[in-house]
Amino acid sequence: MEAKKYKSFRFKNSLAWSSGRRGRTSAPGKREMDIGSPPEFKGEPGVWSPEELFVGALNGCLMLTFVAMARAKGLQFVAYESTAEGLLENVDGKYRITEVSVAPSLVLRSETDLDVARTIMDHVEENCFISNSVTAKVKLAPQFEVGST
Amino acid sequence: MEAKKYKSFRFKNSLAWSSGRRGRTSAPGKREMDIGSPPEFKGEPGVWSPEELFVGALNGCLMLTFVAMARAKGLQFVAYESTAEGLLENVDGKYRITEVSVAPSLVLRSETDLDVARTIMDHVEENCFISNSVTAKVKLAPQFEVGST
Repeated sequence: MEAKKYKSFRFKNSLAWSSGRRGRTSAPGKREMDIGSPPEFKGEPGVWSPEELFVGALNGCLMLTFVAMARAKGLQFVAYESTAEGLLENVDGKYRITEVSVAPSLVLRSETDLDVARTIMDHVEENCFISNSVTAKVKLAPQFEVGST
Repeated sequence: MEAKKYKSFRFKNSLAWSSGRRGRTSAPGKREMDIGSPPEFKGEPGVWSPEELFVGALNGCLMLTFVAMARAKGLQFVAYESTAEGLLENVDGKYRITEVSVAPSLVLRSETDLDVARTIMDHVEENCFISNSVTAKVKLAPQFEVGST
């Protein structure tokens, strides 16, 4: 039996230091953005920090995984909003993000969609490329409601 | 002997699905940005993907760790640019970022700064909060030159 062949993909980033604790970052064809140390570590407010981008990448990946799985199952939904919070802790002398709590809030079109939406959400974390790439514990606490926005 | 007490920090993200495979993401006080699936996974070009933000967060964190350590050692430098590339591979049926190659290019003010800059760079990865939070192998290949920009 031959193993299924999967493609590999490469994602690039470029970065240039601006001044102080701040730089400009970009990816091919993407809008440049500032990146800097957070105020907690002597950086400036108003600039995305690596920690915030990390939490945002995870929150976004979980949503996009849900979207992809929903499409595959023919589930349409009205709205998806999500808040996430990463905990940066010092463990054995090293700071790392140990835990990310993610609270997606979904609005579905009808009661009959609830089961399939819950089933998809149960499998989102194991299919999310970013949650598969981090050591943090991901705590997913989804909420579902039926209605229109 | 009492263990050193370290503070913990929390980093928040908010996200709302826009349409298709795309949403808007933000963090407190930060500029909103689009986030979406990469074209390789049916998304649109021109929108930062979670994978690109992940690689960008790591590249940025390594730079900002270098900056913080350089300040602590009194090292001033002329320029810091860095490219990074993350490899997304399927391992045992799951996609994850297995490896990130990072190539920082530093311009120093004088020959006499080379040793301290190299020593700092040798310790950047172990002090970077994001490299401490990912399962990917980080391959750091720094280059140093002396000059002015």
